[in-house]
Amino acid sequence: RSLRIGLIPGDGIGREVIPAGRKILEALPPSLGLNFSFVDLDAGFECFKRTGAALPQKTIDTLKQECDGALFGAVSSPTTKVAGYSSPIVAMRKSLSLYANVRPCKTVLSPAFPSPTKSPIDLVIVRENTEDLYVKEEKTYADPSDPTGKHQIAEAIKRISSKASWRIADIAGQIALRRARMRQAGGKGEARQGMVTITHKSNVLSQSDGLFRATAREALSQPRFNSLKIEEQIVDSMVYKLFLQPEYYDVIVAPNLYGDLLSDGSAALVGSLGLVPSANVGEGIIIGEPCHGSAPDIEGKGIANPIATIRSVGVMLEFMDLPEAAEVIYKAVDANLAEGRLVTPDLGGTATTEQVTDDVIKRL
Amino acid sequence: RSLRIGLIPGDGIGREVIPAGRKILEALPPSLGLNFSFVDLDAGFECFKRTGAALPQKTIDTLKQECDGALFGAVSSPTTKVAGYSSPIVAMRKSLSLYANVRPCKTVLSPAFPSPTKSPIDLVIVRENTEDLYVKEEKTYADPSDPTGKHQIAEAIKRISSKASWRIADIAGQIALRRARMRQAGGKGEARQGMVTITHKSNVLSQSDGLFRATAREALSQPRFNSLKIEEQIVDSMVYKLFLQPEYYDVIVAPNLYGDLLSDGSAALVGSLGLVPSANVGEGIIIGEPCHGSAPDIEGKGIANPIATIRSVGVMLEFMDLPEAAEVIYKAVDANLAEGRLVTPDLGGTATTEQVTDDVIKRL
Ligand SMILES: CC(C)[C@H](C(=O)O)[C@@H](O)C(=O)O
Ligand SMILES: CC(C)[C@H](C(=O)O)[C@@H](O)C(=O)O
Repeated sequence: RSLRIGLIPGDGIGREVIPAGRKILEALPPSLGLNFSFVDLDAGFECFKRTGAALPQKTIDTLKQECDGALFGAVSSPTTKVAGYSSPIVAMRKSLSLYANVRPCKTVLSPAFPSPTKSPIDLVIVRENTEDLYVKEEKTYADPSDPTGKHQIAEAIKRISSKASWRIADIAGQIALRRARMRQAGGKGEARQGMVTITHKSNVLSQSDGLFRATAREALSQPRFNSLKIEEQIVDSMVYKLFLQPEYYDVIVAPNLYGDLLSDGSAALVGSLGLVPSANVGEGIIIGEPCHGSAPDIEGKGIANPIATIRSVGVMLEFMDLPEAAEVIYKAVDANLAEGRLVTPDLGGTATTEQVTDDVIKRL
Repeated sequence: RSLRIGLIPGDGIGREVIPAGRKILEALPPSLGLNFSFVDLDAGFECFKRTGAALPQKTIDTLKQECDGALFGAVSSPTTKVAGYSSPIVAMRKSLSLYANVRPCKTVLSPAFPSPTKSPIDLVIVRENTEDLYVKEEKTYADPSDPTGKHQIAEAIKRISSKASWRIADIAGQIALRRARMRQAGGKGEARQGMVTITHKSNVLSQSDGLFRATAREALSQPRFNSLKIEEQIVDSMVYKLFLQPEYYDVIVAPNLYGDLLSDGSAALVGSLGLVPSANVGEGIIIGEPCHGSAPDIEGKGIANPIATIRSVGVMLEFMDLPEAAEVIYKAVDANLAEGRLVTPDLGGTATTEQVTDDVIKRL
């Protein structure tokens, strides 16, 4: 099978970790029968400064017309407001209908690196990726209660549709089923039941989050999800419980913004954003994306942790229906971490991006 | 000085902890020269079922006309949608212009109870309390892209004003100054500099969160805040850092919803919502409120932790300009916890609400 992969490094350490992702794909064992070709694509703040567009039309077109998958690095946010600039990752998710952002967080078992949590965790945040406050429909007007005319009011729209809520709950259910099957196949003791936790704030937002909650409940009560346990958790309690008993959770499904916060929280629970992958999943292309940002503080030093990107390659392949290839990558990463000899500074090591990548490749 | 205090137990364990708060006020040393009278007020889901109003007008009127302060317990959220019901606490905050929700989180030093974090934390979340998505302006309409007419779209408005943003940043600055002064007065080693961290998501919400960010920055650059360190943190990173290095933070100022999530996250970092107080602060009345909910699982057992409420009495008194009275309460609570003999089950003990309350009173 021949697959074409778009490479969008973006800014900062994005340019250091995306090449690592490419090397991993090129080094996959021939027995998998996969053949990758690559196309370099532009996006990000640097691209904006150079070309006036943070997400050039050519990037979108190439992804749509040529690519089966892609890897997106990171973009830097300007520290002050820059007219005309807005995040290309949000625009890309929307314009390619990448409706689900899937973010697995699994405790690292490594002598190099003690787990920040008492019990190991293994959960997935399934984040709606196209709406909520991310529709970015905002307006600003003079505050009518202010006679001096100095004060302003700004409004943003949070939009929730039953279509998108159904779709995201449905894929969360499918992911929970697949994870339960894999646990069973793994066969260590009694595999725990699949579970989906629906997160919302419908005690305050009865219509918008109320619609998300009701639709997700309905989607997850389809007969094919009968084997799953379905729970819900108000989002503030979810943050609380995520920290105090994270080992309890399996799949957490959330509207866009809550998903953004919960996935950063989960990344903290495994100790480093440098470990946490994601995939942007839609009906067409799948885009893998490390959860970390462009990390200006370590940019150019060659010490960015490539693991989040390498795992994102795995998650991308999973959603391209190539679970065996994904498994090969996950196992190689786990072996690198289990030895704990070649790890980057964020995990207490001294290895470079390249050394870690090469060590993972040796284990593929 | 004579002070009149409204008591609004609400639902569930609210009815068990608010009496504890009253007992503490009654037991304060006479040398403080304070004289309290009380008025019982109704609100909550039970009240709604009984009277049709979750927040009776009489409660609002009495608070406005008679009370200097009040203690609010908790309200239970119905598990399914109930027509006409909406949270009285949100309505109360708005109708009394309680513009700041102040939530201090401090690690418990107790043999009964190991801290969940490596280093002890001592931070305050200062949450805007009147706007953001809590304006609860929502609408629902048929999804125009759905020919079957089954699908719906719901929208909520997130509203941010420069007035409210200025006000909340200003009080956050004042709190940071006061805390820095108290640390200096405490005089243990070199007291750390006061700091305010501004939280927002202006990389996505450039207008609404952008206005919050810009206004907060401006408010905190007033000369009287010169001694403070001012930082900002995008809210997803804030969740990440809050979990990974909470000891770094001093005062965190946030729009309403982020503040809601960050304060539950901070509560997890001290190990139990049963420990975390808050005060709703405005220009008139101050309302103390434990951060926990109505806890239906332990309702009626007499084992609810009264510490969150007792500390809320302290925070209420602080903002009524009675810092000495507040200090007496904090010290008594700390002494109860430091001994760790009489603590409730959430802290691994077996004491009842009443036993803990009486033990704190002995130490006043
Ligand atoms: C960079 C930012 C726009 C983005 C988001 O909010 O989705 C990031 O935080 C993420 O989680 O991918
Ligand atoms: C009960 C709920 C409406 C409330 C809120 O969201 O403010 C609660 O979570 C709180 O933090 O006081």
